[in-house]
Amino acid sequence: MLEGPRVVDGALDRGARLDAIYLGSGAMRAFAPLVQRAVATGARVAELKEGVLEKLGTTRTPQPVLAVASITPRSLDDLATRGTLLVTVDLGDPGNLGTIIRSAEAAGTAGVVACGNSVDLYNPKVVRSSAGAMFGTATFGTVVVEQGDPMATLEELGRRGWRRLGASADGGEPYDEVDLVDACALVVGNEARGLGPELDDCLDGSVTIPLNPPAESLNVAMAATVVCFEAARQRRAAGVAP
Amino acid sequence: MLEGPRVVDGALDRGARLDAIYLGSGAMRAFAPLVQRAVATGARVAELKEGVLEKLGTTRTPQPVLAVASITPRSLDDLATRGTLLVTVDLGDPGNLGTIIRSAEAAGTAGVVACGNSVDLYNPKVVRSSAGAMFGTATFGTVVVEQGDPMATLEELGRRGWRRLGASADGGEPYDEVDLVDACALVVGNEARGLGPELDDCLDGSVTIPLNPPAESLNVAMAATVVCFEAARQRRAAGVAP
Repeated sequence: MLEGPRVVDGALDRGARLDAIYLGSGAMRAFAPLVQRAVATGARVAELKEGVLEKLGTTRTPQPVLAVASITPRSLDDLATRGTLLVTVDLGDPGNLGTIIRSAEAAGTAGVVACGNSVDLYNPKVVRSSAGAMFGTATFGTVVVEQGDPMATLEELGRRGWRRLGASADGGEPYDEVDLVDACALVVGNEARGLGPELDDCLDGSVTIPLNPPAESLNVAMAATVVCFEAARQRRAAGVAP
Repeated sequence: MLEGPRVVDGALDRGARLDAIYLGSGAMRAFAPLVQRAVATGARVAELKEGVLEKLGTTRTPQPVLAVASITPRSLDDLATRGTLLVTVDLGDPGNLGTIIRSAEAAGTAGVVACGNSVDLYNPKVVRSSAGAMFGTATFGTVVVEQGDPMATLEELGRRGWRRLGASADGGEPYDEVDLVDACALVVGNEARGLGPELDDCLDGSVTIPLNPPAESLNVAMAATVVCFEAARQRRAAGVAP
């Protein structure tokens, strides 16, 4: 479920096909171009009676436009073999996962792999905070893959040639002193627990963002964003396309 | 109001004085060291009957510990005169403002100045997402200042020697090609509208984070975080303390 005109717009930008679009009172006129774009992808249009939209949506402020899109599951085979990957392990907060997807795409990351005991990738809040980036493809945007077991996933990424770098609150190499230009898979862990020691054997190294005291940690979405944009900065400095 | 043991802990780390601490069932024992620290600052302790805490808190998941701290208003005079400042204009979302304060502190920013038609700085969600960074001081952490009119604030910061750089979705200098080592005030705008053109005359330049298509924008907290950490990176590279 896509909630709000901005997310629907973002999904259409990335070539998503919508099954249906649901409009609140006045939205047919207010969002005419958006409705036309949705219809062009085959979406059924339904105008809802007053009060119905509010009951369907999950946002506090009701959104005037909702849409439903089919899920196109992606696998590791859909990922590019170069650039940066972002791997999330046991991420619990849908806003964090969605924001990470949005930032990762904006930084030119090839893919986001959500694994472990993660919030559902299709939770409406993940979709919403991704601002449509969820619907990226290998040729336009960032591919988002849902995976199960983190160890098996990291082992497979290693076999495929990715250098797996765990993000750690301390003890890792300073993130800006690590070569992030190519074939890096940055791995971030759960909001409260970070990455468990059981993953150490599946990592090729770890990176740390130096923090200024008294700060002891960064929000995981912020940390992922900072490192993804450092990779983008290094690629630009090296003249390498994302 | 401070909701949750982590925020209370973070506030105490930064020298906050608590007026009172409210404990849910079992919290007196579970958080004994935290309660002791609170008491040492003069906090009154109240154990609440079952169900009362849930009614006081604003979080969906009830927090076992709440606290109340007095507000110590800060002014521009409390800010350091060097380093980086982050200025927010008309920021609407409490989670964004709190996250920005947390990231700004972690990046060694001297202060955060929230001005314009901003969400209340003392909104419980701002306090919570700041993870205690709200309570920073000039000697330990980041000073957070609430200001009114953005134009007057930016003019005053200019008189005080700050180079005011507006964050813009496009058209600015690439943020990593701008010298951010010293006396920079980074200015970010409202989530939907960005910075209005009326502020142009109060800015010395603008910076843009290059984004990869199809991405068109970053969440404002992400953008602020990326630029604050680039300033921190430049300071480290130049051997300058934050």
